[in-house]
Amino acid sequence: MKTIFFSIIFILPLMSVFSQDVDSVQIKKFFDDALNSKISYNNLSKLCKETAGRICGTQKSLDAVYFTKKMMEELKFDTVYLQELMVPHWIRGEKETSGCTLMKTGAKYIFNVSALGMSIGTGKKGITAEIIEVKSFDDLKALGEKEVSGKIVFFNKEAEQSYVLTFRAYGEIAGFRSRGAIEAAKYGAVGVVVRSATLAHDEYPHTGVMRYDENIKKIPAVAIATNHADTLSMLLKKDKKLIFHFKTNCETKEDVKSYNVIGEFCGSAYPDEFITVGGHIDAWDNGGEGAHDDGCGCMQAMEVIRIFKACGFKPKRTIRAVMFMDEEIAQRGGRKYAEEAVRKNEKHIAAIESDAGCMSPRGFSMDAGIDTVNKFIQFKKYFEPYGMYEFRKGYGGVDISFLKKNGTPLIGLMTDNQRYFDFHHCAFDTFDKINRREMQMGSAAIAGLVYLIDKYGL
Amino acid sequence: MKTIFFSIIFILPLMSVFSQDVDSVQIKKFFDDALNSKISYNNLSKLCKETAGRICGTQKSLDAVYFTKKMMEELKFDTVYLQELMVPHWIRGEKETSGCTLMKTGAKYIFNVSALGMSIGTGKKGITAEIIEVKSFDDLKALGEKEVSGKIVFFNKEAEQSYVLTFRAYGEIAGFRSRGAIEAAKYGAVGVVVRSATLAHDEYPHTGVMRYDENIKKIPAVAIATNHADTLSMLLKKDKKLIFHFKTNCETKEDVKSYNVIGEFCGSAYPDEFITVGGHIDAWDNGGEGAHDDGCGCMQAMEVIRIFKACGFKPKRTIRAVMFMDEEIAQRGGRKYAEEAVRKNEKHIAAIESDAGCMSPRGFSMDAGIDTVNKFIQFKKYFEPYGMYEFRKGYGGVDISFLKKNGTPLIGLMTDNQRYFDFHHCAFDTFDKINRREMQMGSAAIAGLVYLIDKYGL
Repeated sequence: MKTIFFSIIFILPLMSVFSQDVDSVQIKKFFDDALNSKISYNNLSKLCKETAGRICGTQKSLDAVYFTKKMMEELKFDTVYLQELMVPHWIRGEKETSGCTLMKTGAKYIFNVSALGMSIGTGKKGITAEIIEVKSFDDLKALGEKEVSGKIVFFNKEAEQSYVLTFRAYGEIAGFRSRGAIEAAKYGAVGVVVRSATLAHDEYPHTGVMRYDENIKKIPAVAIATNHADTLSMLLKKDKKLIFHFKTNCETKEDVKSYNVIGEFCGSAYPDEFITVGGHIDAWDNGGEGAHDDGCGCMQAMEVIRIFKACGFKPKRTIRAVMFMDEEIAQRGGRKYAEEAVRKNEKHIAAIESDAGCMSPRGFSMDAGIDTVNKFIQFKKYFEPYGMYEFRKGYGGVDISFLKKNGTPLIGLMTDNQRYFDFHHCAFDTFDKINRREMQMGSAAIAGLVYLIDKYGL
Repeated sequence: MKTIFFSIIFILPLMSVFSQDVDSVQIKKFFDDALNSKISYNNLSKLCKETAGRICGTQKSLDAVYFTKKMMEELKFDTVYLQELMVPHWIRGEKETSGCTLMKTGAKYIFNVSALGMSIGTGKKGITAEIIEVKSFDDLKALGEKEVSGKIVFFNKEAEQSYVLTFRAYGEIAGFRSRGAIEAAKYGAVGVVVRSATLAHDEYPHTGVMRYDENIKKIPAVAIATNHADTLSMLLKKDKKLIFHFKTNCETKEDVKSYNVIGEFCGSAYPDEFITVGGHIDAWDNGGEGAHDDGCGCMQAMEVIRIFKACGFKPKRTIRAVMFMDEEIAQRGGRKYAEEAVRKNEKHIAAIESDAGCMSPRGFSMDAGIDTVNKFIQFKKYFEPYGMYEFRKGYGGVDISFLKKNGTPLIGLMTDNQRYFDFHHCAFDTFDKINRREMQMGSAAIAGLVYLIDKYGL
C-alpha cells in the first residue's frame, strides 16, 4: 500500500474521543509515553538473550530473578525484594531424539520431539516399541490393555481450527499432554507421544507440564511437532506394526529454593492497599527464549510503574509488579504470593495478569462477582480508542488465581490471540517475534486500567 | 501460560451470538471453512517464493500474472482472464551502496539504502557530496540555495510513535519520499537520502515510489534504514561537513505491456452487477517477497470465491476477484479497471480492497455517501464475534479508488496495524511473517461482507 491520504479520514472520530474527559487525557498520556519508549523492549531483549531456558529450578531462572530485580532497582521503584519459595527442579538434559524405519521400504524418519515437563526419562537406551494412534481417551479405553500393553501410545488429536478463540482449541487438547501418561499407563503402555498442543502446522515440538498419579506406573512422555505427527500418522496407515523409538534424558531432582520478584510503587493515600500486576518469569527450556510466554508479561508489569513515574502520576494505592516464579510447572510462585497476602492480612483491590502473548491488546476479562464485573465493564469506553472492545466476565490468570479465595477481583489482559500458539512452549518463542508497539499498547492498557481501579475502586 | 480452563468462561457469550440468525449461521460457515483451509496460505507461499521482487514491468511481475491466473483456473472460477494495460518499467539494477568516513577519527560507516522507485540512478561513480539534515520542507526552505546547493539533502523526520493508527504516522512522513527530490532540487541539491517511512527501528531500507517535476532537475533519491538514519544524524553532530556517498544503479525504460488478472464467480440473478474484491499483484523488489504487501490481499480476494464455492453459496451478483497490477508505482491497473468499467457501462455494487497487511482483521472502512455508510455500519453486528468492531466512514483503497467517480461504494479491510510498517516495502516482508489464521480471518471477513452486500445491497 502506498497511499498517504489513507489516514486522514480516520483521525477525526478518534480526536473527539480523546478529549472526552480528564481520565481519557491521563490514559492518553500513558499510551503516548509507552509508544515512545524503548526501555521495556530493550529489557525484554536482554532477558530473552541472557536467560533463555529459564524453567524453575535452573540457574537461568535465578539469573532472571536477579536480572529483573536489578531492572526494577534501576527504574527506581520504591521497594524491590525477593519472596522466597521452593520450586520443582526438573532437568531436561540432552536434546531428545526420535525416529522410526518403515519396514516395507527401509525408509528412515526422524521426528522432532520434546520431553514433557516433569516426565521421567527413558534411560540411555530410549524406548523402542510398537506405536498405536488414538484420538481420545475413549479410543484408548476401547482398545484396552490387550491392544495397548507394551506399546507407545500416540495421542494425535488435532486442534480445532474453527474456533475464533485459540485458547478454546488449546483447552480441548491440552489434557492429552497433562494426563496422557497416566491414562496410557493404566493399560500397560510403555511411553507416550502427544501431538503438540498448537494450532500451527510446524516443525516445533511444543512442550508443557504433565503429571503422574503416584498409584500408577510412571512412563516417559514427549510432544511431537504437528507436521511430524501428521507424518507419523501417515506411516501408521502404511504399517500398523510400526516400531517407534524415542530417547529423553530428563530427570527430577529435589525441590530447590527460588523466588518471586516484587517491585512496588507506594500508594500516596492507602499504601496498605494493593493492586498487583504480574507476569511469570519462568519459561520453557526447549530452544525458545520465553519472549511471548511470558517475558513480555513481566516487562509489561514493570512498565506500568515506569509509565506512572514517567507521567508524574502518583497512585493512591500501592502498585505491585510481580514476576511470578514457576507458572509452568507447579505454580508455586502464585501460591506463595497468595499465602503471604493472607498471612500479612493484606488488602488486595485487584490483580491483573498478562500471560496471553505479546500481541495487540483486545480487552480484559474479569473473574469476579457480577456487580464488580459490571463496574469494570464501564471502563471499556476509555479503551475503545486503542482498539480494545472486549471487556467481559472471564478468566484472570494462573498466577493470580490463588488470590481468588481472598475475594480479590482477577483480571486478564486479552490479546489478539490468532498466532499465540505458534510461539507457545517451543523454540519459535524468540525475541525477534516481538513487535515493540504491540507490547507497549498492552503495557499502556494495563496502566490505564490500574489508574481507573486506583481512582474509582471496583 | 499453561492453563486449560482459561477458555471455558469465554465461550458462552460467543455461542449465543452465533445462533442469532440465518446470516450469522452462513457467515460462521465461511469462517469455519477459511480457518480449516490451507489452500490460500500454500498458494501465498508459492507466490512469495517464486515471484519475489515482482514490481511492474519485470519478468517476475508477469510470472505472478500467469501464476495467479493458473490458481484461479485450478480453483474452477467461472471466468478467468487478463486485462491488458501498459505499465512503467523501472529497473533497480545492482544492489545500492552507501557510506561515509568520519574525518576526525577515520572511522568508516556503511549504510543500508534502497533506491526509491522511479528515481534516476547515480551513474557508475555514485554521488559523493556534503550532506545536510532537515526535518521538514520548511527547514529546507529556510536553509535556501546557499546552504543546499551542491549537497545531498537528508530528510530525517521520524515517524510519530504516539498515534494508535500507524497509517497516520506514515501519511505524515511519506511526502518526504514522494516529493523530497523535487523540493531539494529546487535549491540545487545533488541527491536525496530519506529516512525510511516506517515506525520500526530497524536495519532495512523501506523503499517506495517517488516522483519528479518535469520542469525541475532530476536528482537521485534513496531511502535509508531508520537505525542508520539515527547513526548518520549522530555523525552529523560530530562533523557538520560530513561527506556522504551513495551509488544506485536504477534506470527507467519504455513502458511495457502488463495485465490485471480477473476471475469471476457469475451471479445467479444479476450476472451483470459486480462486486469487486481486490489486492495488488505487484510488490517491491528490494529483498522482500511481497507477502504482506500485497500477496496476502490477492490471495484473500481469490479466497472469497473459493470459500463461497466450498460452502455451496451462490451469489446473486457476479463476484470478481481482481489482482491489480502496478499499485506501487502509477496505479495503472486500478485506472484501467475503472476505465473498462465505464467503457462497458458495468454496474458496480461495491468494491473491496485488502491492502493493509495480513494481520487480524479489525473491521472495514467505507468511502461512500452517508446513507450508504450508515447501512454498511448495520452489518457490524455480524462481525463482532470475530473481533471486528471497527465499521466506519473512511478510506477504501488505492486500486479501487478510480471507481469512485462511477459512484461505487469503496471499502477497505482494516487490520491490526501496529506492526504493518515493519514489513512495508522492505526485505522483512517475507512469507514466514504470515500467520495462516490471521490471513484466513481476513478472507472470511471479506466473504461475509460480500455475502451481506450481495443479499441486501448497499
